[in-house]
Amino acid sequence: MFRPQIKVVDCTIRDGGLMNKWQFEDDLVEQVYLADTKAGIDYMEIGYLSSESAFSREEYGPWKFCAEADIQRIIGHNGEKKIKLSAMADIGRIEYDDIPLCSESSLDMVRVACYVHQIDAAIDLAHHCMDKGYEATINLMAVSTVGMRDLEEALDDLSKCRVPVIYLVDSFGAFYSEDIDMLSKKYMAALPDKTIGIHTHNNQQLAFANTISAIIDGVNYLDGSLYGIGRGAGNCPLELLISFLKNPKFRVKPLIQVIESHIMPWREKIDWGYFVPYMITGVLNQHPRAAMAHMESDQKDKITDFFNQVTNSTDMV
Amino acid sequence: MFRPQIKVVDCTIRDGGLMNKWQFEDDLVEQVYLADTKAGIDYMEIGYLSSESAFSREEYGPWKFCAEADIQRIIGHNGEKKIKLSAMADIGRIEYDDIPLCSESSLDMVRVACYVHQIDAAIDLAHHCMDKGYEATINLMAVSTVGMRDLEEALDDLSKCRVPVIYLVDSFGAFYSEDIDMLSKKYMAALPDKTIGIHTHNNQQLAFANTISAIIDGVNYLDGSLYGIGRGAGNCPLELLISFLKNPKFRVKPLIQVIESHIMPWREKIDWGYFVPYMITGVLNQHPRAAMAHMESDQKDKITDFFNQVTNSTDMV
Repeated sequence: MFRPQIKVVDCTIRDGGLMNKWQFEDDLVEQVYLADTKAGIDYMEIGYLSSESAFSREEYGPWKFCAEADIQRIIGHNGEKKIKLSAMADIGRIEYDDIPLCSESSLDMVRVACYVHQIDAAIDLAHHCMDKGYEATINLMAVSTVGMRDLEEALDDLSKCRVPVIYLVDSFGAFYSEDIDMLSKKYMAALPDKTIGIHTHNNQQLAFANTISAIIDGVNYLDGSLYGIGRGAGNCPLELLISFLKNPKFRVKPLIQVIESHIMPWREKIDWGYFVPYMITGVLNQHPRAAMAHMESDQKDKITDFFNQVTNSTDMV
Repeated sequence: MFRPQIKVVDCTIRDGGLMNKWQFEDDLVEQVYLADTKAGIDYMEIGYLSSESAFSREEYGPWKFCAEADIQRIIGHNGEKKIKLSAMADIGRIEYDDIPLCSESSLDMVRVACYVHQIDAAIDLAHHCMDKGYEATINLMAVSTVGMRDLEEALDDLSKCRVPVIYLVDSFGAFYSEDIDMLSKKYMAALPDKTIGIHTHNNQQLAFANTISAIIDGVNYLDGSLYGIGRGAGNCPLELLISFLKNPKFRVKPLIQVIESHIMPWREKIDWGYFVPYMITGVLNQHPRAAMAHMESDQKDKITDFFNQVTNSTDMV
């Protein structure tokens, strides 16, 4: 009863790293890699591709860059690689020349994240990665703020490109399942030859539910992360997604083990998940940056102050 | 664009009390009452109706009983009562003679909770409450474990009773939105003259999403609680529900204020919400009692042990 076309992408390191500048210890990254392998996950997204000239290794951990030497430290002594690795590339943060050939990299896939005005640049970068041998996707972010006509133009541009996988991304955690349903159908109708993916955020505790809605509509690339770790309210919890999917290759127990041993300790250090400030920016369809700044301040429990600040004290509709 | 028939029930004290034996301080109960009033909530469920001969006031706080004197301590000095109060009654835990006349009580509604084999007793108790002047509902619990033929018989019995509101209850947090959709339609078809209600649990982070599914199907009595406080993984977060509903009488800010001042401090003392043990019992469609016992032990972070214990170490499907 399962769809063999479904592919699951674990964004734990890449999206979780947005909360700690990718300062995960190597042991954590390795244990996530081994757990994903045992759990039957299709892709582990290990970080971002960024140019080392643009960001400092003093400030950012290795998974901001995904250099081959760093990846080898994780996977090199663990035998044959049985799952695929992906990295995300943000428009303008990676020089083409800094991307190695796929044949010289352990990465299998590059996912290009872009806003709607960057769609041409994103297609160009994704084509460049495909020409270097990688699988590629384009992840069009913040769709909840894009007008319908601009979205239709973007989908039209995407329909003409060679990139085979296009993601619907709810960057602000603003969508209800009805929105996901409408947009999934719109993406599939506009891009009949492509595979559609879904990446959700949990501001309104709808990341898993919205992922299920997309699955029902025929979306086949599914993002999740361990215990939902990710920016702000976090992502679709991978352990829920794997418990839901019917493909017998998936196993949830290795995920529970690594959540216990390596993810829960990070709960003591960083706050991701459902907190009222993230809920408020989700409801207001705003970038979570104000909520993240509030959560990092020593006033994080002052949620009424935050509400007043972002709404100018008027009640939310 | 809103449905005026929708009524929202705040279960904070009643369901939250399952986590602390209703040992909430009076100030908390009063501030929840005032916040619900300001927020436009229709009903505040203030506790259970239980016979004092059956439970000790040494062990249980006042909201296990909902005596009029206790209710008066909360509402008596706050002017005219502008929202309705409800209490839940479990079959076998309240003597009929211990239920006052509605005219002598501040309670407006009694909700009778029952398992499927108790349906006749539940109808009898609900009729008794109606004869004493109360509004009444029947909340048929643990439907995820009831076979379809038994459920159809129960719905047939309910269709013949005078009780006007019947609740669909996902006691174990086991349902996906498709289940809720199917069951909501089944309840509405079997009970065309009645109003249907929904009470969800958040084991799989689907309490809010499932409540939305029910709303779309035409369910009109909606349960929630502040910050989701409730047994185990808790309930549909009231602040999310109120932000979603379009009736302009609702205000979310009073709810955020009381979450900050009175609910968040309880997070330091009791663990409700999404935790892996609750997720596991939800996926397995089991009563959360094993997960609650695990969370109350000094081994609560040993989630792999819990997984092995409840699955006998086989992987979850």
